[in-house]
Amino acid sequence: MELVASEIDIGTHLPTVLLNGGDAEELGVHPLDRVQITTDGTTVIGIVEVTEELVAPGTLGVTRRLGHVEGPVDVTAAPKPRSVRYVRKKLDDRELEADEIRAIVRDIEADRLNDVELSAYVSGIYSNGMSDAETTHLTEAMAEVGERLSWPDEVVADKHSIGGVAGNRVSPILVPIIAAAGVKIPKTSSRAVTSPAGTADTMEVFCDVEFSIPELRDVVEETNGCLVWGGSVDLSPVDDKIIRAENPLSLDPTGQLIASVLSKKYSAGSTHVIIDVPYGEGAKVDGHSEARELGDDFERVGDHLGVRVAPAVSPGHEPIGRGIGPVLEARDVLAVLAGDGPEDLRLKSERLARLLLDACGVDADAGDIIDSGRAEAKFREIVAAQGGDPDVTAGDLTPAEERATVTADRAGVVTHIDNRIVSELGRRAGAPKDPAAGLTLARHVGDEVATGDELFTVYAETTDKLDDALALADRAEPVRVRSREEAMVERI
Amino acid sequence: MELVASEIDIGTHLPTVLLNGGDAEELGVHPLDRVQITTDGTTVIGIVEVTEELVAPGTLGVTRRLGHVEGPVDVTAAPKPRSVRYVRKKLDDRELEADEIRAIVRDIEADRLNDVELSAYVSGIYSNGMSDAETTHLTEAMAEVGERLSWPDEVVADKHSIGGVAGNRVSPILVPIIAAAGVKIPKTSSRAVTSPAGTADTMEVFCDVEFSIPELRDVVEETNGCLVWGGSVDLSPVDDKIIRAENPLSLDPTGQLIASVLSKKYSAGSTHVIIDVPYGEGAKVDGHSEARELGDDFERVGDHLGVRVAPAVSPGHEPIGRGIGPVLEARDVLAVLAGDGPEDLRLKSERLARLLLDACGVDADAGDIIDSGRAEAKFREIVAAQGGDPDVTAGDLTPAEERATVTADRAGVVTHIDNRIVSELGRRAGAPKDPAAGLTLARHVGDEVATGDELFTVYAETTDKLDDALALADRAEPVRVRSREEAMVERI
Repeated sequence: MELVASEIDIGTHLPTVLLNGGDAEELGVHPLDRVQITTDGTTVIGIVEVTEELVAPGTLGVTRRLGHVEGPVDVTAAPKPRSVRYVRKKLDDRELEADEIRAIVRDIEADRLNDVELSAYVSGIYSNGMSDAETTHLTEAMAEVGERLSWPDEVVADKHSIGGVAGNRVSPILVPIIAAAGVKIPKTSSRAVTSPAGTADTMEVFCDVEFSIPELRDVVEETNGCLVWGGSVDLSPVDDKIIRAENPLSLDPTGQLIASVLSKKYSAGSTHVIIDVPYGEGAKVDGHSEARELGDDFERVGDHLGVRVAPAVSPGHEPIGRGIGPVLEARDVLAVLAGDGPEDLRLKSERLARLLLDACGVDADAGDIIDSGRAEAKFREIVAAQGGDPDVTAGDLTPAEERATVTADRAGVVTHIDNRIVSELGRRAGAPKDPAAGLTLARHVGDEVATGDELFTVYAETTDKLDDALALADRAEPVRVRSREEAMVERI
Repeated sequence: MELVASEIDIGTHLPTVLLNGGDAEELGVHPLDRVQITTDGTTVIGIVEVTEELVAPGTLGVTRRLGHVEGPVDVTAAPKPRSVRYVRKKLDDRELEADEIRAIVRDIEADRLNDVELSAYVSGIYSNGMSDAETTHLTEAMAEVGERLSWPDEVVADKHSIGGVAGNRVSPILVPIIAAAGVKIPKTSSRAVTSPAGTADTMEVFCDVEFSIPELRDVVEETNGCLVWGGSVDLSPVDDKIIRAENPLSLDPTGQLIASVLSKKYSAGSTHVIIDVPYGEGAKVDGHSEARELGDDFERVGDHLGVRVAPAVSPGHEPIGRGIGPVLEARDVLAVLAGDGPEDLRLKSERLARLLLDACGVDADAGDIIDSGRAEAKFREIVAAQGGDPDVTAGDLTPAEERATVTADRAGVVTHIDNRIVSELGRRAGAPKDPAAGLTLARHVGDEVATGDELFTVYAETTDKLDDALALADRAEPVRVRSREEAMVERI
């Protein structure tokens, strides 16, 4: 039917069109169906929403995502994209073929699936799982979409840590070690989604993290490494779109996790990748054996892709390092690189770097590279190449002004530090939006404390945010202290 | 944070709010998260979408679904509704408790779930199924929401047919039979969603079908029966909302189907219900045993609710009756009630009415009630009570003017009439939007035909729609004719 189109911005990333109820009935389409819009010989497909008021009969509201569509257009009902059938096939618990998975990935990339279909895809692979073959196909399909880097080097290193552990800022220490050992490591990282800081947020304290692919290439060619935000380079554009359907239910289907990580590594041109899987209460993976299994899955799918994966597992039941929040984590990083800083962060970074160098077949000692100052020098080189101040000192990294220290209300031992509550506390204090906000942890699990000893200090830009964080601390006990007796057996 | 709200209509039924990207970051919320909006002591919860352009920093776009929200408001991040956890539990294939299912149903009813969460719910119960206990809890929860009718009678009859069979217009014949036998039958029916006519669309040819609950009660008290659109009475408001997430993937999870049907019957105050499950190629259920199983499921869940279900199965591999489309089906109904009309529709209606009367323990003969003219008289009484013309004749029911007859291009036997293609053909011809559009089938499966014999005739309001329907007929062969030899063994 003939309708008059005009642009309408309803704040959705999807190619939505708004139809009046009567016109929708005439076309025989329902909300979330598609219509085909033809004007001057060009045709676009939109996803339907129906309104009685915003759009008058005979007119069509078109969101900008569909391009410039204005004036008289011909509108007809359009079939669902082919991949909807494959989403349903997965809900029926039938294994998907390579071309079916590719169709789903391409339709997600092109915004051809509506929220219901996207959610059904995530629900299906979460509920019914994916075979190794499916995960490999998914990884390849995700890597095909978007850019891909290639390097002349035979060995290109990379690293990924499964999230969930607060303060786990290994990459800014590991990347300079690897780069200083003469191996390229084009590291991309994420920003925080539900945590108080992602590696990209922490690095942004030092320098720019948003780069195009040619710019990233320049940084890596100059320094052997980089520490940039993955969202700015276009290595796996599908990932961000899938997250929209993962977030509301906090779903992280294993096959999708592996594909998202490895497709980015593959697209970065990396050949040898260390995958760190933290396990324990509050980490993404509960137990040691489950973590090993996930590591093995990564290795197998990597083999299919021609990417050598070195899987590693690590205890993730408590935060790593001292600071939580971009600036406070940046201070830890600088201290470790200077041969100082939290011992657990130093040991973990050094150990992962050692395993990665082993996997790459490079004869270099990660500990030496830190102790000799070569890692720090390389870090400052990367910071400079990314537009930051190479002479940055801890004094330049000032935590937020509003502060409060929480102390032990009894003598005893620290029995538990909860990653999720610590993260939530950091967010309430204002991180990552306020980079200097967050908290510093004064203790680790197993430490003995006396009444009045510092447990942690919260930093915020405003007293409101400080109070909000402290209210949570008061209620949720992020750092649990128990007497020696209670620590052995607790009455509940 | 403080924002200035103004109303914005983006054509969504959900309580959506639009935030500027920077404000969303400050609040720490992502698309599809919730915010709590407080103004003058009242608080509402909105679902977030993020825009950079439509809504300026410091302002908030609020859809009408949230009520009148205007001017300065206080906005904070709000937690997800509790039921999101239970949706996830179902995706984990764990059985849900009664109160968990009730929480999901109430949140759906109040539009508290976004499309991703609603779709995950449907995907979860589709993929992982529901136990009898879960289905019973779901039925009760759906019945609790919305209105409920009660009647002084000990026996109140009802009927439901699982969809998928074109032309299957049994209710307008069965309801007057039951009502004429002295049993109340407060029948609600649906409008077409993807078919060319629902029972409500067909009844609308004769009279009004949109009634409030008090009006429905008056009609039933006057005539013993009614034939109204279920969407106008508020018996199961959750149903329409769930359909939004079922349609895009054509999902119809069994537990949800049973709960949707029986909750409406329960809310209508019905005590004895016949459930007709058609089976066969092109029907919703493939095989005879699968249909029996579904019938048994209905019966068991009905027992828990205190509703006596008489399950029945019927062949559904080809359309029932002659007409497809509201007016053309209305003609069949009127003819059968007059003791004439398509034999299959008469036999099926009579048989289901007989089984229902048996279940109700009423000693009356359905065939006699038709043959004596009492069913027709009762039908006209109901039509009059619903505001229609009781003296309507076939002559008042004129099919659309543009017509084309499709004939057999060979001699042989009709081997197949495809429900889905026949339905699509009726929709392309214009039904149900054009009530007089559709088609009439001249043959049944098994009929012998000579070259040039009529197979079916298409009716449409415009030549465009007629051509569109004929193009499909040409391509898709809705009525398949094969030679005697081919009918036995077909080369492919």
